[in-house]
Amino acid sequence: MTIDSIVTAAMLAIGDELLSGRTKDKNIGHLADMLQLAGIDLKEVRIVADEEDAIVAALNALRPGYDYVFTSGGIGPTHDDITADAVAKAFGVPCEHDAAAMQLLGEMYARRDMEFTEARQRMARMPVGAAHIRNPVSTAPGFIIGNVYVMAGVPQVFQAMLDEVLPALRKGAPVLSLAISCPFGEGEIGAPLAAIQKAHPETSIGSYPRYVGQSFSTEIVVRARSQEPLEAAGAAVEAMIEEIRRAKAGQR
Amino acid sequence: MTIDSIVTAAMLAIGDELLSGRTKDKNIGHLADMLQLAGIDLKEVRIVADEEDAIVAALNALRPGYDYVFTSGGIGPTHDDITADAVAKAFGVPCEHDAAAMQLLGEMYARRDMEFTEARQRMARMPVGAAHIRNPVSTAPGFIIGNVYVMAGVPQVFQAMLDEVLPALRKGAPVLSLAISCPFGEGEIGAPLAAIQKAHPETSIGSYPRYVGQSFSTEIVVRARSQEPLEAAGAAVEAMIEEIRRAKAGQR
Repeated sequence: MTIDSIVTAAMLAIGDELLSGRTKDKNIGHLADMLQLAGIDLKEVRIVADEEDAIVAALNALRPGYDYVFTSGGIGPTHDDITADAVAKAFGVPCEHDAAAMQLLGEMYARRDMEFTEARQRMARMPVGAAHIRNPVSTAPGFIIGNVYVMAGVPQVFQAMLDEVLPALRKGAPVLSLAISCPFGEGEIGAPLAAIQKAHPETSIGSYPRYVGQSFSTEIVVRARSQEPLEAAGAAVEAMIEEIRRAKAGQR
Repeated sequence: MTIDSIVTAAMLAIGDELLSGRTKDKNIGHLADMLQLAGIDLKEVRIVADEEDAIVAALNALRPGYDYVFTSGGIGPTHDDITADAVAKAFGVPCEHDAAAMQLLGEMYARRDMEFTEARQRMARMPVGAAHIRNPVSTAPGFIIGNVYVMAGVPQVFQAMLDEVLPALRKGAPVLSLAISCPFGEGEIGAPLAAIQKAHPETSIGSYPRYVGQSFSTEIVVRARSQEPLEAAGAAVEAMIEEIRRAKAGQR
């Protein structure tokens, strides 16, 4: 495993159903979690419809800018599954029935005594030169071309395919994080927290309001790529919270 | 209310926490649902980090292409809330403390006997010339500039702000839809379903696999902007399912 300091990724989620509200996406959050653990920075996500032009444009916008691009959706057997064709078009290569995928699927359907229909054969189509991503759930493979990883939209299959490809990805230094629960709203901590961020430039400090009942509290998350700056910024945040607490007690 | 045939929208969700996996976005699905009901076509979504360049670039890519752009996140009081500045930069106008917003927030904090801190005053900053979006949950307003609607990331506040702006949006002809549950996998229905789609060009037919236990079933969703083509395509889908069922019974 090579450790580089920064490895970046983007995701392209494909499907009308994500934009109509029919399906609430689950793959973006899962990919975010898994890449975070691998020290790979997910920098951008796009969701587009099942429209070839939209897929090609988004893919060609994303793939030069990031180390990896992961797609979800549109690789099934029906007429609205056009991802393989769109990816091939983006790379300027033909999209054909892949011999190894045809054999894999043909054997699977034969074993299950099911007809290897023309629709099912669509799932063996991929850009010429693409490598398979194994699908341990339902056989039909995803594929890799260039830095683009094309995976299924069904969450169980997306997750299984991601598990298949993760070990071989280049990893970044893992991001360490510290979550500190703060009983005060962002309006009270905003100025001192900005000062702490300024004093600890090797960290990235996020503050996330939670609105419960009638009042805001905050979760403060400190992130860094090594332990020392993480702990220093964390201690500063704890001290800030304590100081506000004392000041409030003094006011009473 | 004007009814145009097609009204389009995009969404830009802003926040490191969405890309690190810490927060699983809830606003995209909610916006998709609400726009669907309003007959507005959500065509594209992007998620970017709390980085000014990324926000400006995404916003300037999206706003010429769609009737409306909705953003979520980054309008709170802390140092990582940079959406107002980034939006102002995208439009090439200054970002200043808005007098009406300052008054609104000042009065609210006075009523609650809380200090109107510098951090809280940040929430009154917006691009010069922007109009307020009322925030019935926690007062700090969102804003509208050009065709861009800037709203909070906290789901309760995002939803409340969306409720405020929806009535005044231009509506499209609402999309009617018909969901048909199909006991067969996509591999079996792919070819006849493609033929039905071809024969009913005024409809958009999606098929969504569900993987339960060891086998796939499918939900087929027919969408159209008027009743007649919707029903015709729906009837064709029902007939297709019946035909497959009979063929299978005949095989036994």
